[in-house]
Amino acid sequence: MNLEEKERIFSNLSMTGTEMFQLMNDLFPICRSITGNGVRKSFELIKNYLDVELFEVASGTKVNDWTIPKEWNITDAYVIDPDGNKIIDFKSSNLHVVNYSIPVKKKLSLEELKPHLHSIPEQPELIPYKTSYYKEDWGFCLSHNQLLNLKDGDYEVCIDSSLENGALTYGEYFIQGITDQEIILSCYICHPSLCNDNLSGVVITTLLAKILCNVNCHYSYRFLFIPETIGAITWLHQNKQNLEKIKHGLVVTCAGDSGILTYKKTRHGNTEIDKAVQNTLRFSGNDYSIEEFFPWGSDERQFCSPGYNLPFGSLMRTRYGKYNVYHTSGDNTDFVKKPFLIDTFSKYISVLFTLENNRFYKNLYPDGEPQLKKRNLLNPIYTLLWILNFSDGENSLLDISDKSNIPFEEIITATNELIQAKLLEEITDVGNKKPDKKF
Amino acid sequence: MNLEEKERIFSNLSMTGTEMFQLMNDLFPICRSITGNGVRKSFELIKNYLDVELFEVASGTKVNDWTIPKEWNITDAYVIDPDGNKIIDFKSSNLHVVNYSIPVKKKLSLEELKPHLHSIPEQPELIPYKTSYYKEDWGFCLSHNQLLNLKDGDYEVCIDSSLENGALTYGEYFIQGITDQEIILSCYICHPSLCNDNLSGVVITTLLAKILCNVNCHYSYRFLFIPETIGAITWLHQNKQNLEKIKHGLVVTCAGDSGILTYKKTRHGNTEIDKAVQNTLRFSGNDYSIEEFFPWGSDERQFCSPGYNLPFGSLMRTRYGKYNVYHTSGDNTDFVKKPFLIDTFSKYISVLFTLENNRFYKNLYPDGEPQLKKRNLLNPIYTLLWILNFSDGENSLLDISDKSNIPFEEIITATNELIQAKLLEEITDVGNKKPDKKF
Amino acid sequence: MNLEEKERIFSNLSMTGTEMFQLMNDLFPICRSITGNGVRKSFELIKNYLDVELFEVASGTKVNDWTIPKEWNITDAYVIDPDGNKIIDFKSSNLHVVNYSIPVKKKLSLEELKPHLHSIPEQPELIPYKTSYYKEDWGFCLSHNQLLNLKDGDYEVCIDSSLENGALTYGEYFIQGITDQEIILSCYICHPSLCNDNLSGVVITTLLAKILCNVNCHYSYRFLFIPETIGAITWLHQNKQNLEKIKHGLVVTCAGDSGILTYKKTRHGNTEIDKAVQNTLRFSGNDYSIEEFFPWGSDERQFCSPGYNLPFGSLMRTRYGKYNVYHTSGDNTDFVKKPFLIDTFSKYISVLFTLENNRFYKNLYPDGEPQLKKRNLLNPIYTLLWILNFSDGENSLLDISDKSNIPFEEIITATNELIQAKLLEEITDVGNKKPDKKF
Repeated sequence: MNLEEKERIFSNLSMTGTEMFQLMNDLFPICRSITGNGVRKSFELIKNYLDVELFEVASGTKVNDWTIPKEWNITDAYVIDPDGNKIIDFKSSNLHVVNYSIPVKKKLSLEELKPHLHSIPEQPELIPYKTSYYKEDWGFCLSHNQLLNLKDGDYEVCIDSSLENGALTYGEYFIQGITDQEIILSCYICHPSLCNDNLSGVVITTLLAKILCNVNCHYSYRFLFIPETIGAITWLHQNKQNLEKIKHGLVVTCAGDSGILTYKKTRHGNTEIDKAVQNTLRFSGNDYSIEEFFPWGSDERQFCSPGYNLPFGSLMRTRYGKYNVYHTSGDNTDFVKKPFLIDTFSKYISVLFTLENNRFYKNLYPDGEPQLKKRNLLNPIYTLLWILNFSDGENSLLDISDKSNIPFEEIITATNELIQAKLLEEITDVGNKKPDKKF
Repeated sequence: MNLEEKERIFSNLSMTGTEMFQLMNDLFPICRSITGNGVRKSFELIKNYLDVELFEVASGTKVNDWTIPKEWNITDAYVIDPDGNKIIDFKSSNLHVVNYSIPVKKKLSLEELKPHLHSIPEQPELIPYKTSYYKEDWGFCLSHNQLLNLKDGDYEVCIDSSLENGALTYGEYFIQGITDQEIILSCYICHPSLCNDNLSGVVITTLLAKILCNVNCHYSYRFLFIPETIGAITWLHQNKQNLEKIKHGLVVTCAGDSGILTYKKTRHGNTEIDKAVQNTLRFSGNDYSIEEFFPWGSDERQFCSPGYNLPFGSLMRTRYGKYNVYHTSGDNTDFVKKPFLIDTFSKYISVLFTLENNRFYKNLYPDGEPQLKKRNLLNPIYTLLWILNFSDGENSLLDISDKSNIPFEEIITATNELIQAKLLEEITDVGNKKPDKKF
Repeated sequence: MNLEEKERIFSNLSMTGTEMFQLMNDLFPICRSITGNGVRKSFELIKNYLDVELFEVASGTKVNDWTIPKEWNITDAYVIDPDGNKIIDFKSSNLHVVNYSIPVKKKLSLEELKPHLHSIPEQPELIPYKTSYYKEDWGFCLSHNQLLNLKDGDYEVCIDSSLENGALTYGEYFIQGITDQEIILSCYICHPSLCNDNLSGVVITTLLAKILCNVNCHYSYRFLFIPETIGAITWLHQNKQNLEKIKHGLVVTCAGDSGILTYKKTRHGNTEIDKAVQNTLRFSGNDYSIEEFFPWGSDERQFCSPGYNLPFGSLMRTRYGKYNVYHTSGDNTDFVKKPFLIDTFSKYISVLFTLENNRFYKNLYPDGEPQLKKRNLLNPIYTLLWILNFSDGENSLLDISDKSNIPFEEIITATNELIQAKLLEEITDVGNKKPDKKF
């Protein structure tokens, strides 16, 4: 990705935003889970934008310490109150059903029903999001206000679901770059009607892939659309022999709310991806937040588990768990705003641009300064001097941007001019210092 | 020391406090010095609690650059004024005599007497504590108010002391642990009627030893009751061949005043004992103070001299020299408060608990997360994830507590559950990373 | 340089200040440039103080990527307005002519003249300083107020200059020390009537050399009086085989204004010279500023270019570019104040004293403390203990001063006493730790 390609992407951001927003709205109503037809239906929509390759891993397959569970599907679910009113209806919001609920159809008293009802007393108007993937159970979620108004009597309960041998579905999209070394962008596609968490991540990942197809990439790119946790573990298990190629990874999540950008560092904490994201945020002109790695959260906790220890960070807006409507019906299509979705997308592009262009160069006139005046260079002299002085085999262009406080893009422009002027030469054999080495 | 043993010790703190306070009050009146019968009489009282082994090192023995001095003993001392009143009396406070004063009995004018009188003009009501160990001299200490009221005339002066070949007395108590590697707790027993400095240290050390006798210890423990400076040098000289066993050390001093806890780091500054004490203080919920090593103060300056360079810190309350009544008659049994003595004692137990239980473990399911749900674990999931992710051979449990901001005790409880669940295994051959290596 | 020699220098500071101020005023009117007779005339004046050795490098000589330019000389220059008034006159200020202007004598209209006139709209009363060393051009500088008052009509313009094959002149002064390892003090002598930048540096360098002649120096000293940039590159090129000897370097510039002292670090950032200067400033009792290395500014950018990477810092007052009158006629003899010139000079002496006396020592009684009382030492016990404890082969005296917060001079006094008392011995074979190793 060179500067012109980056400029072209940036000049189309508004159209990209429209596509992302459209796809997000289309995906929103579908009841997804970690397995099942909701995921497959979602991929059908995504395929309008990107020819994702789908993989199906059969129920019962062992993946590390885990086993692919039975496939869950659901067609309907409701609760009818003593007066015959359908007071909870899966069709109005798929959050009403505890995800992975076993089929049930019976009458119960309010007393018997209550242990199966979930609400949030502190947020009495919102429906919570609950799952029971690995323990056979059933339940309904509803607003606390609604719960409080339930009258005594017998309730008719129906969950028309199935839990049967089937498969876990995930998607992958691959772009071959000049090098086989890979950058992974991973999002999870298992959440039902929740928007910031994580349709925002799904649509940003989709559009990143779609757009990078038309870019001359240095790195190869692999885009993962996987169910959270079990999907990441499955993918890692299935691809163990290829992990050496992975140079950088980002988990794309919670990417469209109106909060400031947040970067959660890799487990190692000081890899090139850490530097690249922080450099982008630092020059963004906006506030942002940096969090040290912690071993819970999203799939970075799998990629960064000690057995793999891959350099995965996560670039978000407000971090999961930190915004009010997290894992509730409030995380809807209104909560995600197009300008913020676009802003996050553009930061991903900037980070990738940085990774694509970060290299080590050698100053060919290292003894004193080369005489710049006689070469009629156009870039600011200060920028040229920073690059020349620190192109000593120890500092990458990203390091020079950090040291000099000059935006990476300006460093690239000036570097290109210095290469043209034969003052600078790429170091191709930097050994341990190579920026695309494992860390 | 396991969690139950620690709990048992904590549930008996009040009784321990009473014992410490009783011993402290019993020891207070005795006139101790770096040699002599005052020290021996003190050990008789300590032996009511602990069977300390006594060592006598003869006067004239060379210990490194030093020589054991003659033994000093004293039975009485006084000054009688021109009116025949006994105005200074050793029997009312042994601080009145400059410690190690040679015998004297004569009449002098006030003018001749004055160079031998010591007071503190800034604290006119307090008697200072003075010594003259290595220069033959004599003197009296008194309050500045009393000094100002002395009238002209002839004074009768008597110091009934002796300075003769004898021995330096020190005590040691040893507990054999599972490993021969030792933790040293050292206090000094040379100060006369001063309470915080350092009867507080003596009684905490005594009770720590008494209580650890009944605990199943991983480390061996050695408790030193030595005269300050010359005693530490003597002990180091006599035990040079055994110093390799010492893994951690603390000098126990100024431990019962009402100030906040202070930790003076080891000379190295980042050893396991430094981390353990700081971890304990950090989770104590109270303010505390950390001081970098400095080469003056108490016996840590001998243990940390460059020839030995042992990992000795010092856990105190208000540091010597920093409280008003330091080295004066104001450092009496009222200045030390039982609750603070108990608090310091409990922090020592917490530090020792941390050292006893700090280990490296290996996550047996390092590829992604193990599936915790299927194992019905009871500890908080976040704690379990922190331990699993960082049990990679690089981080000890203490490191994980520091990184995760989870108290060490909670880390231990969760670790025990993970071991039970066969998710974790101790690394016994950690080479340089072994937490009980020299540093 | 021992303590007495340093004291002697400090007791003569007032006289030194007078000499510096006199030389500065004498040098001020001369029109210097990077080549030519102005430089030679300046050396004649400097030779009244110091027998500088002069070097002439012929025009056309290749020095790294550069070529020594033709020599520039000028005798007169003026502009006569349409009314026949000489409104710009080189004789009243040599800043009026763009330095290195080619000869010109012609009549032009105001319109034709204007592209050759330079002023500062934001500082309408000051004449700017402009150069055109490597592009054949001519021009005049004047105050913006004067520019605004120019009336239409024909102007007579004369620059009586020459640009011919000749030489670049630079000066060197060398003092042989006990060791061949060198400290370089470098100033630039190419600026015309500008005082802080850099006659202040020239006179401080001159007097440092003059005074160090009479001092018994550990290091050898080389004082460079060179034209900026091309001179540094020339000197480095001519002396490539001797650079190994250079242990420390400082560029002396902007040293006499009333601002606080500023230290710009070496490229490496943590060499002995960096520590020495910061130690001096820290104990000065005055505010000061530390700047990380940046690859523009004065000749440190040549000495610190990646091909040489020498440990050169720069000790200034207000940094170039940061004071209002920088590179204008306002940087005159009033802008530099004698007390500040003296203060900077004294800081240079302190830094050199530190470098001269910084050594590693070995405590000869490292097992516990040596018994200081029996040796009747006079220095403060705390200082003695700091030196003894940290004289372990790992810490130089400068490190001990930094760690202990005890001024370097007090460390030296106490060290001398400890050597006398046979408690300390210099480590002469410290290998990598030797403070005078390259870094």
